[in-house]
Amino acid sequence: MIGKTFDELTVGDTAEFAKTISESDVYSYAGITGDLNPAHVNEAYAEKTFFKTRIAHGMLVGGLISTVIGTQLPGPGTIYMKQSLSFLAPVKIGDTITARVTVLEKLPEKGRIRLKTTCINKEGAVVIDGEALVSPPRPAKA
Amino acid sequence: MIGKTFDELTVGDTAEFAKTISESDVYSYAGITGDLNPAHVNEAYAEKTFFKTRIAHGMLVGGLISTVIGTQLPGPGTIYMKQSLSFLAPVKIGDTITARVTVLEKLPEKGRIRLKTTCINKEGAVVIDGEALVSPPRPAKA
Amino acid sequence: MIGKTFDELTVGDTAEFAKTISESDVYSYAGITGDLNPAHVNEAYAEKTFFKTRIAHGMLVGGLISTVIGTQLPGPGTIYMKQSLSFLAPVKIGDTITARVTVLEKLPEKGRIRLKTTCINKEGAVVIDGEALVSPPRPAKA
Amino acid sequence: MIGKTFDELTVGDTAEFAKTISESDVYSYAGITGDLNPAHVNEAYAEKTFFKTRIAHGMLVGGLISTVIGTQLPGPGTIYMKQSLSFLAPVKIGDTITARVTVLEKLPEKGRIRLKTTCINKEGAVVIDGEALVSPPRPAKA
Repeated sequence: MIGKTFDELTVGDTAEFAKTISESDVYSYAGITGDLNPAHVNEAYAEKTFFKTRIAHGMLVGGLISTVIGTQLPGPGTIYMKQSLSFLAPVKIGDTITARVTVLEKLPEKGRIRLKTTCINKEGAVVIDGEALVSPPRPAKA
Repeated sequence: MIGKTFDELTVGDTAEFAKTISESDVYSYAGITGDLNPAHVNEAYAEKTFFKTRIAHGMLVGGLISTVIGTQLPGPGTIYMKQSLSFLAPVKIGDTITARVTVLEKLPEKGRIRLKTTCINKEGAVVIDGEALVSPPRPAKA
Repeated sequence: MIGKTFDELTVGDTAEFAKTISESDVYSYAGITGDLNPAHVNEAYAEKTFFKTRIAHGMLVGGLISTVIGTQLPGPGTIYMKQSLSFLAPVKIGDTITARVTVLEKLPEKGRIRLKTTCINKEGAVVIDGEALVSPPRPAKA
Repeated sequence: MIGKTFDELTVGDTAEFAKTISESDVYSYAGITGDLNPAHVNEAYAEKTFFKTRIAHGMLVGGLISTVIGTQLPGPGTIYMKQSLSFLAPVKIGDTITARVTVLEKLPEKGRIRLKTTCINKEGAVVIDGEALVSPPRPAKA
């Protein structure tokens, strides 16, 4: 149960996780964070907004990036240091989102990895763009 | 049900939301995002890590920032454009975290607001530091 | 799957349902209702209150009464018309609560039933006292 | 993090909270309370009832009143003493409900507040009517 170490990672390595964002995801997330902004949980309000319906929390969708980082690339043992997120398009309840993580750069001095992190909808539009900085797991002791 | 408009916001305005992060928060969030990294949901594994116990997902804790932005400052009607996050210290299950949002700068050209966004634990340590860029709600038409 | 009809109910009939109120119950309920009052979800705040720790939402605990009415006495098919609740003592996370419903009076004119409804903790203290008015299920057609 | 004190409250003060009641709200609430009455969680049964579909638990909807009281009017620090509820109309899954709380009377002898508490659907129908009695937060010591 250990992810990829610094030496095992190569620029261009990519991993993905995809999920359909359900109403229960949005509602449970609202409860966990306390973000009951009506744009997320009040359809009567949301109908009158620019987006015409309830949308998922941007940070919920961004959380799928952490899923890829923590379970696949680099995976367990990774220390998550930084994440930047640009919210480019709304995610509606029922949209299927793919989080994609790609190794952009290896920083050998401190053994860190810079990752490109995007979330893409079924139509191929980038809904979240950003970057992460991580410290991948150390090799197991010999 | 409308938040503060550009003209109603002043540099230095601050708002907060605080919550004790429960085990059920971490587990529900793991299910919503699919991030079942053992550091979050496997105590036997976590005991052997640097942190000695299960820790909350950084993006879960960062979501409390969105709660302040979406419900208080600026509040409903805000469009969330960018968020940067530096994960500076772990949050253990049972820690009480305060998310604090402060207006850093008003950008009049496009009517946007730059916010300082931090999450602080009970001992006063900054566990997440970062900035957000938002477009506050438009004034209701006259 | 039909509860007791008016004729099948007798003054003094009693039914109960008991549950230990977990932290996840309180947190999930906070999310469902949006009631993230710090008394329920912020232990650092709650330590400084009169109750010294987080307490369950009174209406969550009162909901156990509805469980007895809707599933046992009178049971499925009942129309719940009125409920009064006096919140007499706090319920802490981990407390085991018994909701007890007793037939107080049969009102033959409109076929309604008046019920005594209480919630009691493990020590025997009444934490909620009140009454309900219900319309029990009609007999199945011959 | 303190609500309005007795002196800060005026007869007629009003606050609201609104939410679309989702299927996941009803199901999670059923699990928390144990009220798995088929009217709430069995669509095949519910189709044959007077309401023709699954309805939300009355006490779940009534819980939105507690949200307004505990987070807005009077807000944190309030002690919830009594609540009466008349369930006047069903709430179906997907209905958007507004809980509205209004100060009816100030009772200076014991420093209590009587509140009108209603839940209203999108069409403007009152689905729950009732009253609450609360003890608002004490002023912070000088």
